Parts: sequence; C-alpha cells; structure tokens
Amino acid sequence: MKAALFKGKGAIALGERPDPTITEPTDAVVRVVLACVCGSDLWFYRGQTDYPVGSPVGHEFLGVVEDVGESVHIIAKGDLVIAPFFYSDGTCPHCRAGITSACVAGGVWGANGIDGGQGEAVRVPLADGTLVKVPGSGHSDETLASLLTLSDVMCTGHHAAVSAEVQQGDTVAVVGDGAVGLCAIIAAKRFGAQRIIALSRNPVRQKLARAFGATDILAERGEEANEAILALTDGVGVDAALECVGTNESIQTALAIARPGSIVGYVGVPHGVELPVPILFYRNVGVHGGPAPARAYLPELLEDVLVGRINPGRVFDFTTDLGGIAQAYAAMDERRAIKSLVIVGTF
Amino acid sequence: MKAALFKGKGAIALGERPDPTITEPTDAVVRVVLACVCGSDLWFYRGQTDYPVGSPVGHEFLGVVEDVGESVHIIAKGDLVIAPFFYSDGTCPHCRAGITSACVAGGVWGANGIDGGQGEAVRVPLADGTLVKVPGSGHSDETLASLLTLSDVMCTGHHAAVSAEVQQGDTVAVVGDGAVGLCAIIAAKRFGAQRIIALSRNPVRQKLARAFGATDILAERGEEANEAILALTDGVGVDAALECVGTNESIQTALAIARPGSIVGYVGVPHGVELPVPILFYRNVGVHGGPAPARAYLPELLEDVLVGRINPGRVFDFTTDLGGIAQAYAAMDERRAIKSLVIVGTF
Repeated sequence: MKAALFKGKGAIALGERPDPTITEPTDAVVRVVLACVCGSDLWFYRGQTDYPVGSPVGHEFLGVVEDVGESVHIIAKGDLVIAPFFYSDGTCPHCRAGITSACVAGGVWGANGIDGGQGEAVRVPLADGTLVKVPGSGHSDETLASLLTLSDVMCTGHHAAVSAEVQQGDTVAVVGDGAVGLCAIIAAKRFGAQRIIALSRNPVRQKLARAFGATDILAERGEEANEAILALTDGVGVDAALECVGTNESIQTALAIARPGSIVGYVGVPHGVELPVPILFYRNVGVHGGPAPARAYLPELLEDVLVGRINPGRVFDFTTDLGGIAQAYAAMDERRAIKSLVIVGTF
Repeated sequence: MKAALFKGKGAIALGERPDPTITEPTDAVVRVVLACVCGSDLWFYRGQTDYPVGSPVGHEFLGVVEDVGESVHIIAKGDLVIAPFFYSDGTCPHCRAGITSACVAGGVWGANGIDGGQGEAVRVPLADGTLVKVPGSGHSDETLASLLTLSDVMCTGHHAAVSAEVQQGDTVAVVGDGAVGLCAIIAAKRFGAQRIIALSRNPVRQKLARAFGATDILAERGEEANEAILALTDGVGVDAALECVGTNESIQTALAIARPGSIVGYVGVPHGVELPVPILFYRNVGVHGGPAPARAYLPELLEDVLVGRINPGRVFDFTTDLGGIAQAYAAMDERRAIKSLVIVGTF
C-alpha cells in the first residue's frame, strides 16, 4: 500500500509499506478515507524534534473497517470509524478513569511497527478499546471533516477547556490561533463561557475564531497581550486561560493572564517551556493538561458533530489527496493553511 | 509592648515595639492571647531566606479586640478573633472569588510597619475583611489551640486538599509530616477520602497522622516511596497527592505518585522546587496551590472546630510563653516539636 513517510527535515513523500493484516486477535484493519496533518507533525518536519527517517507519519484518520481479529466484538467489518491519536485498551485503570492517553497497553501511530494515519490503511491494535463507530450513513463532506477533527484537534481543544475547568459564565482566553486554539474556542463556548478572548493576528483565523464563538480578538503579544487582557478584565485576569501552542512565550502569557486561583489548561506539546514556580505558587495559578484522552471525549463530541451543534471541520482550509501529502505539510509549515485535509479514499 | 524580633540567623529575642494604635479608620487593635511558630518561620530563622534583622515576626495569632477604627462595623471591641496569616479587604474581586491571599489591598504581618503575631498586640489593617470573630465564650484550652491553627496551618492543609480536588472515596497521599501535612490529613478525611497514605518516619508524627485519619504510613523516601505507593495502589498512583513541605524532593515525590489526570495540591512554600514539564505534561498531572486563602476557609473550618469535628490543635506539642519565644523556635528547628504554641496573654 501507499503511505506517507518522513524522509528528513522538510521532506514527506509517499512510499510503499506492506498491506496491514490482522496479527493480534484484538486488531482491526482500517482502510483510511480521510487523514490530516497536525500542528505537532510540524515539529519533526521542521527538524525541531527527532523522528526516525523512513517512518510512517500521521496520527489522525477516519476510515472503514476492512477486517477484525477474532477477539474484536464491538467494532465490525464495514463500520465507519474514527481513530483517536493514541490507541488504548479501554479496560485499564487509566482508561476507566477517562485518561485513555495514559493507557498501560496503549501507544502512538507511526512507531514500533504500527502504521501511520497518513496512508491507505492501518492495522489498529486494541480495536474495541480504540475505535469509535460513527452511526448512520451518507454523512456530508462537512460532517466527515468535523468527525475527522475528533481524532485529535477538537478533542485537544476540548481537553484544554476541561483541564482549565471552564465553567458556565466564565471569561476565557485562548492563547494560540492554530487549529487546536480554534477548537478550544468551540470547547469554551460549549461549556457556556460568556466571554472568549482569542489571541490572533491573522485575519483568516480571526474570522474563524469569531465564527466559533470568540467575543474579543487581540492582536497583541507578550507583555502587550498581558496588559490588554488585564485591561479587558478590570485587572483581574481571566477565569480560564487555554494554552494551545506549546512555546514558552505562549505559556508565560497564559500564566500572566490567569486570575489567581484559576488553572491554565495547556495542550500545546511543550517545547522549551518553563514553569516559573514563584509565579504559579504566589498567584495560586495552577497548570493542568497534556495529551488529550481523545478516546474518552469522542462519544460526547461525536454526538454534537452529528447534530450540527459544533462544526470544527471548518479548521480545514487546504485539501489534497495522498499524492499531495508534501503540499499538505508545506501549506501548514508556511502558515498558508490552518490545517490540511488529506482525502485518502472513498466509501 | 513586648514583641518577638528577628535578630539574625538562629536568633529570635523579645524586644520593645510601640504600643499599636488605630491609624486608619479600618484598623483594629488586637491584644494577642495565643500565637505560634510556623514551619515557614524556620526558613529565615535558618538563614535560608532573607528577613530584615530587627523586624517583628509571627503571622498566626488569636486575641481580643481592644479598639476599632470608626469604619469598622463587623468586628467590635471585646470580640475574640482569629487573624488569618494575610490581611485582606474582603471586597476586591479576588477576595470575592475566595482567593483572599491575592487581595489587592492585602499584606503580610511583620512587614511594612505592620506588627508581627508573636507579640503582645497587633494593629490589624482592614479589620472587617480580615478578622473572624469566634462565637461563644469559655472555650477550652484544647478548642482555643485548634482555633489558633485556623490562622494558617489547618487552612493551609485544607488548601492542599482543595487544590488537589480531593473527592469522596479518593486515595490520597500526604507528603510531609509537619503540622501542615498533619492538617492535610484532617482535610482529606473531612472530604471523605477513603484511604490516606502519610509519608512519615517519625513515631510521634506517625501516631498523630493515624489519629487524624491516615490509613497507611510509609517511612520510605524518594524512589522507594514512589515504588511503595505504586505498589499500594496497583501501579495506578493516588487520586490526589498533597505536597506539604516545599522542597524539590517532596514535590518530585508528589508528582511521581499522582495518577494520570490528577492534580498535585502543593502548599509548602517552595524552595528550589522545579516543575519538570515533560513529567507533568505527558502524565497529565497538574499542579495547583499556593498561599492558602485562610480568610475564605475560616468560617467553615471554625464551625467544625467548635463542634469538635476536627481537632487540629493537637499539632501543638510544645508550649511556652512570650519569654520563651527563642525556645519555641529552637524546638521546631531541632525537630523536637511539631509546632510550638506561645501563650501570650489571658482573657
């Protein structure tokens, strides 16, 4: 089969990988229909984190089950399924507590012999614990794109809001206008935030931020952003700051604008982030976050997508096929695209 | 009046300070009846943090109101009152949100011309916002000692449990067997924790930990403590870890034993603490804490003390008068005492 492979800094190309087959009784084989590129893929693409050259890439996909092992009882051949960005057994204490991203038997796509999501098919370990079946049929392209975001980016934005414990009526600030930040706006609105301040200086993203529920847009950064937000909140700070980038600058902004007693929800994969203990401690500002337990969040968000209550698929503003995978990365790397959708197959 | 003063590393002595009088209409003057020494006082006593030589010391006291300014309407002359370790106006947005330790008009005892608590009397700024009246009269010495702990140590232990979001039925670990750690055990039990693991290697403190509600006592430290707690919790970790020391070793222990998805509540004043971002992020373990908003917690805990539901005054195992203040510090410094009570006056 064809699959996208990492060929070194700035280089993603299609290559050949063996067609996946059932090797464990708990496996499923999924034929990929839609995949996408994640902001976190850009870290290795840009050479900022290590990634084995020649490895398959991609961890967000949606597709049709082609085959299942004999111990798979929930997922069945022919099901349209969403794969969260981490596979998990659904039965360990962490899964049962809703932290599926800490599953003791779990793992990531594209490593240790597991296929990546940006390819024609994937062997999915622990299929019953991992995959979520999409009910119904004949979903629109718009709905399918939104369903695909449940693989990672919408669940990750949701995790920022969950970790920051956003409440009805809150004033929330979202640091980061990437796809995760935009989804965090959806999540904050979904939890009933009254005021949502988005930090963005990109007109396209500002517009989407407003469409998703942002009530205020700030183009300031660093110290100026802190001052602007304090001015907007009578010097108090926000009830919840959602950090959706992963740089040290963005976490410092989130910490500075969070009101005393609040928690910064952080989901951007940290690079060079430092947590300044005196600032956290003496202001009683907490931090909580990490890789989203997407599998645990999927059912409730799936329902909201299917009834049209949320439409996170609007973050996709670049579409290509598997042959265009290099362009999918380049468009995001050059910030021409918020997020790239890759149409891999058809139903 | 006589008041304890910092005379340099390892030296606390009684000295003279002007009798406090009303200088602002919102002031009260409180004649101190009971005071005590805090674990955090040992930091400057040991020369590990700066403290101006000659300054008054102490931030925990209970006493009788001698005089009030003309704008004081809640607190009245003759009231028996508890002073939280931070004065606060009770009206700013942070106070109204329950984070009185972030009061915009607030401050600490023993600095900026404000008296310390270890002296015969204190001018209390913002008296109506700060002081809490103890109802009734004729309280036993035991009750009075417990009421004094609401000035800081019991509220601080409670803050660890609040910050870690301890729930009914939880398994909780308390790192630190000082007075704060022991009070955190009381707080965890009060929130309905089912299992409370106390880390202590001191037989006296172990006994008190059990009396306060600890179900398991571990004498291990560092890596061995982590392993022992993971063994006790089927490899999962605890639902809430309460860090009550403030050293880097204790925070690392708390982070290591906290189950994925949980929050470490930390209240020990941090010294040399580092928060390792990858451990926090990839395990989805949060941190939250800081100086306890004692004023906000006081009313509910006061009620529990008065009905005898909690008895945190048992942490006092050394009693002296103001003349013995140097011994009060030395006993705690040498770990002969958990916490020193100073009887300053009578009713």
